[in-house]
Amino acid sequence: MSDREMEILCIGNELLIGKVVNTNASWLAKKATWLGIIVKRITVVGDDLTEIGTALHESLQRQPHFMIVTGGLGPTFDDKTLEGIARALNRKWQVDEKALDMVKRKFESSAKDGQLEKLEMTPPRVKMAKLPADSTPLQNPVGTAPGVLISVDNTALIALPGVPSEMEAIFDESVAPMLKQAAGKTAFYEASLYVEQIGESRVAPSIDKVMNSNPEVYIKSHPRVEEDHQSHLELHFSTTADEAKIAKDRLSKAIIQLSELIKENGGKVKTIKNT
Amino acid sequence: MSDREMEILCIGNELLIGKVVNTNASWLAKKATWLGIIVKRITVVGDDLTEIGTALHESLQRQPHFMIVTGGLGPTFDDKTLEGIARALNRKWQVDEKALDMVKRKFESSAKDGQLEKLEMTPPRVKMAKLPADSTPLQNPVGTAPGVLISVDNTALIALPGVPSEMEAIFDESVAPMLKQAAGKTAFYEASLYVEQIGESRVAPSIDKVMNSNPEVYIKSHPRVEEDHQSHLELHFSTTADEAKIAKDRLSKAIIQLSELIKENGGKVKTIKNT
Repeated sequence: MSDREMEILCIGNELLIGKVVNTNASWLAKKATWLGIIVKRITVVGDDLTEIGTALHESLQRQPHFMIVTGGLGPTFDDKTLEGIARALNRKWQVDEKALDMVKRKFESSAKDGQLEKLEMTPPRVKMAKLPADSTPLQNPVGTAPGVLISVDNTALIALPGVPSEMEAIFDESVAPMLKQAAGKTAFYEASLYVEQIGESRVAPSIDKVMNSNPEVYIKSHPRVEEDHQSHLELHFSTTADEAKIAKDRLSKAIIQLSELIKENGGKVKTIKNT
Repeated sequence: MSDREMEILCIGNELLIGKVVNTNASWLAKKATWLGIIVKRITVVGDDLTEIGTALHESLQRQPHFMIVTGGLGPTFDDKTLEGIARALNRKWQVDEKALDMVKRKFESSAKDGQLEKLEMTPPRVKMAKLPADSTPLQNPVGTAPGVLISVDNTALIALPGVPSEMEAIFDESVAPMLKQAAGKTAFYEASLYVEQIGESRVAPSIDKVMNSNPEVYIKSHPRVEEDHQSHLELHFSTTADEAKIAKDRLSKAIIQLSELIKENGGKVKTIKNT
């Protein structure tokens, strides 16, 4: 894989029983894409050591530059991510002194006078500081369990908690800068053309034409079926380029071309939304 | 895998750039789980023949009883799912007469007087009827592209459109009955215990205890951080059993045990939510 490619692995039974919608994956995918990174795959498995190990091995074999794992870093028995990573990498799963210090300070700062039980480092609390050998803990600004950074050959493997506020805070503070550095000036741009009075199957040849003459621009149609069965299409344009200006110019050119073709074919361009 | 296991493969660049949250996966996972099926893995890849083929091969090697693929069945160039499946299975990708008839009738029924272009079977429209050899098209009650059922060894491979209303309608009409038959009387039950005045790390040993004496019940804690930093936990109980009554009884027993332990440890049970 190129040095800008990423995979996301989300761990949690709650995702596999449909209790929780995987907003962590879409949040991470959007952030990474806008930083110039290309997300190649998202995988979801349950809180199970074998499942975690298998999925991890498969991803690492593809050698993404970044691999973000979410979920399963908490104090309870069902949080198995770090044990799973350690086993899969054939590393020891052991208390990390830096991580232990981070966890300790979290409980100390939340302990009020006389709340001695808040200071006690019970096994579930120590568990949050048990990392695969040779890991770097990443400060959690809003919760207790630290994030974890592990170098595996050419992959930066990063484990983040499943609680969205904690995942997002660690990402913004410690992960985004790494992605930004890898991506350099690379810029992603997207825009949507909303079209009516023309169906998806009639627009299809025009999309082909514009994509052929703009090979760097990806166009995807999303039909929206209205209650009156009127055709209403969102045509989504996106591109990743070495510089922001190039990306923007590319999109503008493709949007103008497709708009013309749509009008020629009897369709109507309702609105253009830049994001 | 057992004859009640399923994998879900979602195809779409829009999922990898975070433009769209994968509600299709959570909808399917919830429906399947409640029908007694066990979802083992969810995978997301882009609209790319190689990516689709690789992901498909990996899933099929695990021999799930059901494999549901969503997205990429439409008329446009970027809808590559069926071509990808055909290639991966080494089958021809060809016009299916039954599917062609379904697509034709859709356009005929939406054509008003004089709208002759609605009757024309253009290449993009015919494309929606191109299926891997030996497939069975599944009627789409609300859109145009049919769903597709393919037998691959012991796996029922089912491709559904990415538009949620179409995916859901085909699932309810054609897929749910298959899952129900495979699951028999198997029943899934879940309930949540909302707990306060006790943190996740203090509840952890009690969860272990209750899970050990109720090995069929899965308990997962979801911390919710309030603005005042008060501990607030959702403890989610779930089980799948051969009969509904057994599932319900199992959950009740585990909930009572954990509630007692939480009170003994100074926590407060706020509410129990059955679903």
